[in-house]
Amino acid sequence: MAEREAVLVADIGGTKLAGGVTDLDGRLTTWAQVPTPRDGDAEFLWRTLESLLARVLEDAKIDDLGILSGIGCGCGGPMEWPAGLVSPLNIPAWRGFALRERLTERFGDKNQVRVHNDAICMAIGEHWRGAGKGCRNVLGVVVSTGVGGGLVLDDRLIQGSSGNAGHIGHVVVDPDGPRCQCGGVGCVEAIARGPALAAWAQSEGWRPGQPEVTAKDLADDAARGHAVALAALRRAGLAIGTAIASATCLCDLEVVAVGGGLSQAGALLFDPLHEALARHARLDFARQVRAVPAALGQTAGLVGAAALIIKGDRYWAGD
Amino acid sequence: MAEREAVLVADIGGTKLAGGVTDLDGRLTTWAQVPTPRDGDAEFLWRTLESLLARVLEDAKIDDLGILSGIGCGCGGPMEWPAGLVSPLNIPAWRGFALRERLTERFGDKNQVRVHNDAICMAIGEHWRGAGKGCRNVLGVVVSTGVGGGLVLDDRLIQGSSGNAGHIGHVVVDPDGPRCQCGGVGCVEAIARGPALAAWAQSEGWRPGQPEVTAKDLADDAARGHAVALAALRRAGLAIGTAIASATCLCDLEVVAVGGGLSQAGALLFDPLHEALARHARLDFARQVRAVPAALGQTAGLVGAAALIIKGDRYWAGD
Repeated sequence: MAEREAVLVADIGGTKLAGGVTDLDGRLTTWAQVPTPRDGDAEFLWRTLESLLARVLEDAKIDDLGILSGIGCGCGGPMEWPAGLVSPLNIPAWRGFALRERLTERFGDKNQVRVHNDAICMAIGEHWRGAGKGCRNVLGVVVSTGVGGGLVLDDRLIQGSSGNAGHIGHVVVDPDGPRCQCGGVGCVEAIARGPALAAWAQSEGWRPGQPEVTAKDLADDAARGHAVALAALRRAGLAIGTAIASATCLCDLEVVAVGGGLSQAGALLFDPLHEALARHARLDFARQVRAVPAALGQTAGLVGAAALIIKGDRYWAGD
Repeated sequence: MAEREAVLVADIGGTKLAGGVTDLDGRLTTWAQVPTPRDGDAEFLWRTLESLLARVLEDAKIDDLGILSGIGCGCGGPMEWPAGLVSPLNIPAWRGFALRERLTERFGDKNQVRVHNDAICMAIGEHWRGAGKGCRNVLGVVVSTGVGGGLVLDDRLIQGSSGNAGHIGHVVVDPDGPRCQCGGVGCVEAIARGPALAAWAQSEGWRPGQPEVTAKDLADDAARGHAVALAALRRAGLAIGTAIASATCLCDLEVVAVGGGLSQAGALLFDPLHEALARHARLDFARQVRAVPAALGQTAGLVGAAALIIKGDRYWAGD
């Protein structure tokens, strides 16, 4: 039998599908991404993923699946964990899609296949090899179409009762704030997720009558000094910083790694984030926390997916 | 050598000192409590604790410290953990008091001595033998002079970077709310801790000019239907419920056990608590959480202190 020396990894989001191959230290030897198909049924989406993964295997010159240690995959939530039945909010074509089973059938070859939430994989990647490397208590936060996260405490990934621990998006930052898509009120996600932020800016007079604008446009306009766009990023940063302060006090965190599209806005987001964090995290232990940009960028989720396999004792508690 | 079959336990708070002896299943065979001396220096307080513990050992007919498995102790924070140098906010006589060392010298006899935060001991007790028994993800909350807590996730006590994980008192529930004694703004403790609640009620016209009134008086008056007292308990319940909602989403909790003096108010506190929880914890997984009164009452901290010794693999990560 060939020596097991590589991990096949995938990261499935509403905007992009990414695939790659890592060595057993979690270094990506090759990776690629394609846009997530907006149309087409569940099988079409699966075939798109399948051919992406076949391509990265070919790029990595792996023709024998027997040299894989396993397959690790991050996917947008919610999902039934650890069963890997996925129903990503932003991928309507998959509802109860048996992702773990399909990956096992196609690429498993007796290898272990592990699927977890994409934001959790990002957090794992940042803890293992990114901004939280060497720290035992790390929160990863992804600010994008939604706001998600993953929680590593006492050097282990926290699963929680249903595999959803780390879901910072629904921490309350304003009890009388806007209604959230979860049905709640004043969640950080209701304020800081990209579409909510763009909608708020439009209601304040930014680019009126342009339904297609995104948080990326907002960040670009803020960088050019547009007052409403700047106010919108400040609004998001304060909300995220407040949620991080609560999480820091509750979980005694050392590092919070913030990634996702909106984190690209840099100081325009992080300055108000740090302002809110300094305002609300005041106890001695809480003041030690460092909230920093995620270090691994777009590949954090792939590296975290590899860790589900390579460092399963720390990051995987499923079957 | 005698067979080790008992644990000496203590629970040190600003109001009461409790001591007891448990068997190796964590059942209290005897326990007693005395008021915490309000005056006197560090040594006087120590002698009070020492004689209480000597008394419970005598009650339990233990004259050979060699039959103890260890000594477990909960104490008000903050403390240097795991060193056990304690500086309880509500016990000014002890500042950097070497509690763990003193307990070891006096009762250790080569036994292990373990000291942790009193709210954490309460949470451990509730997880091991109380309202959270059989659940893997439990938050214990103590609402008293302060608001504290402890966090058991994936069946293990979470320590965090400085032993402070579970400190729910400084989760933000109103970002523009009252100033907290921690220096922050809008912490749940700033609203729901007993003295803050009584002060708020007085500012609204309840028992004006009576500086000695307590949250207990407030709860009593609320039970008699006093409108301002009822509003105060509602205010506390909503704040606590909002903080619990945030903690539930972040940590994917199954059970939250609420204890401490104010929890004695029953439905007057728990009804608004559940109202806020239902309003803010809306995701499918978060709706499963049960927020209930602590089951072990005044002895939860003693039982948890015993668990530091008996179930150290799960509840103790210090040296």
